[in-house]
Amino acid sequence: MKAAFYEGNKSIVVGTGARREPGPAEVEIKVAYAGICGTDLHIYHGHMDHRVKLPQVMGHEMSGVIERVGGDVADYKPGDKVTVKPLGPCGECPACQDGCSHICHRLQFMGIETDGAFQAYWTVPASTLHRLPDELSLQHGAMIEPLAVACHDVRLGQVAPGEYAVVIGGGPIGTLIALVARAAGARVVVAEINPYRLQLLEELGFETCNSKERDLAEYVQEATGGKGADVVFEVTSSLAGAEVMTKLPKVRGRIVIVGIFSKPVPVDLHRFFWRELQLFGARVYEHEDFEQAIQLAASGELGLDRLISEVYPIEQIQAGFEQMESGSGVMKVLIQCN
Amino acid sequence: MKAAFYEGNKSIVVGTGARREPGPAEVEIKVAYAGICGTDLHIYHGHMDHRVKLPQVMGHEMSGVIERVGGDVADYKPGDKVTVKPLGPCGECPACQDGCSHICHRLQFMGIETDGAFQAYWTVPASTLHRLPDELSLQHGAMIEPLAVACHDVRLGQVAPGEYAVVIGGGPIGTLIALVARAAGARVVVAEINPYRLQLLEELGFETCNSKERDLAEYVQEATGGKGADVVFEVTSSLAGAEVMTKLPKVRGRIVIVGIFSKPVPVDLHRFFWRELQLFGARVYEHEDFEQAIQLAASGELGLDRLISEVYPIEQIQAGFEQMESGSGVMKVLIQCN
Ligand SMILES: [Zn+2]
Ligand SMILES: [Zn+2]
Repeated sequence: MKAAFYEGNKSIVVGTGARREPGPAEVEIKVAYAGICGTDLHIYHGHMDHRVKLPQVMGHEMSGVIERVGGDVADYKPGDKVTVKPLGPCGECPACQDGCSHICHRLQFMGIETDGAFQAYWTVPASTLHRLPDELSLQHGAMIEPLAVACHDVRLGQVAPGEYAVVIGGGPIGTLIALVARAAGARVVVAEINPYRLQLLEELGFETCNSKERDLAEYVQEATGGKGADVVFEVTSSLAGAEVMTKLPKVRGRIVIVGIFSKPVPVDLHRFFWRELQLFGARVYEHEDFEQAIQLAASGELGLDRLISEVYPIEQIQAGFEQMESGSGVMKVLIQCN
Repeated sequence: MKAAFYEGNKSIVVGTGARREPGPAEVEIKVAYAGICGTDLHIYHGHMDHRVKLPQVMGHEMSGVIERVGGDVADYKPGDKVTVKPLGPCGECPACQDGCSHICHRLQFMGIETDGAFQAYWTVPASTLHRLPDELSLQHGAMIEPLAVACHDVRLGQVAPGEYAVVIGGGPIGTLIALVARAAGARVVVAEINPYRLQLLEELGFETCNSKERDLAEYVQEATGGKGADVVFEVTSSLAGAEVMTKLPKVRGRIVIVGIFSKPVPVDLHRFFWRELQLFGARVYEHEDFEQAIQLAASGELGLDRLISEVYPIEQIQAGFEQMESGSGVMKVLIQCN
């Protein structure tokens, strides 16, 4: 079968991989589509060589149809349309024991620590599966994983109907957060500077603030009559994002840290004290976030098509990574794996 | 009547003040004791000259007995033993409208923006009063305000029985937080480097970590079997405190920012993401915190006597400030105002 192997140093080689027979509690999935995630790009750039084993099959945002099931698998059968929650928790650490297996101390992330979805067939534990409804296309099915991230972020941010939400950073995850927060009933403004993204956000019906041209803190103060935002999502992991995020919330307002900061950055802890702000870190997703993502995507309300910039056959996966790398003018790139 | 006037530049002059007749909704209190707070020391050092009007009567941690009541005051009468919640909210800003008047956008703090308790008689709105029970001494009554801060911090930190709590900084507020967290059923360790404070904490029965001699993060990891703390109180407003605080909590553990940071400091936001940490700013107190503080103090369980380092008559208030300024070997200094 065809498989895409990351071989280090920005090189992905498409070759022949070996299909793996599902164990008793596993299934083999014929992969339909798999999205390129920021993390995949990070691996591609060599920044995560300490976590991957070369050659590495990446990919963890996917959809597919079950091809074979192991002997102990009762809930799924060949032909079922599924996606995968790509988390491998240890089951034993304090986080797992405490009901937080999604942030297990020894989490194995599928497509990073183990092999991923950029191949024609992928064998995974049946426990990682989520069923996709008939009315959900396989392309949208490959968006469930990042959409579940957004559902998790919005849930941990406790977004309520009528609230004013600010999303700092309108890339793929920021845009999905904006869509989910709007679906939760919030008024959403997205801060972004990239013209392509700004236009896409406006097409999706979002209020935007081009923070290059307009001071975001002033914008939010004006828009809320001096009260401040109910909730702020920091999705840029930038110095500027960390600086502005504390200026936006109302008293007891919430900040959700979505961006992955590579090192400590200055944060105005005085503002946390002064306004009794709250900050919540949010990482990946839990079972209910996947289920909510599937429901939202199946409803057809989100406009996910608009987020799919390009679909490449697996043979051209390197071109997909290069387009992602170019950054501007691209949101989500999918790889067709069969 | 005697009153102590801060005249700027570390000078406090005790002279004669004018008693003020209570308005219809006010009472005049004969002040018994008033504590010197870190904020008072801050004013004394000239760091808050932009907020005070010279000559300024400071002091907001107090106890006393009502001397006169205004015509509209029905709930209190002369002879009642009281303390004051020294907050003057505007009643109109978004915070006040949102039920957060204690962090009003235009909060007037009594003893800073208006006159305070370092005088023989103090006239205040009846709405600021909390009644002190007979069994509570007037010296302990003067500790209710800082104890209410601790009650607020512990409440916002959602401390539950059996939890592991770390208090970074064992000064007056840190020690009160430790006492309240223990009363809430937590196992408490206090990190401190000052030998006087360490000994006092141990006399109060607390586990301590001398963070000069022992790595606090290692200590907490070992003590919790690798899990991490349930809740961490940052009370030092130091670079070191901001650095270590993110290393201590368990997954989804809580950090409460109590210390007043004078400028932005590096914070490991990646750790918030990775462990889904939560951070809560906590400022002053609300009505229920004062009531809880009074109950706890009246129970006699806290050992508040041990926290009172010295009592000076108002004539010697400058000596009290100088003792506070020396820092080591002192916890709480009270001024006897009559
Ligand atoms: Zn685990
Ligand atoms: Zn107000």
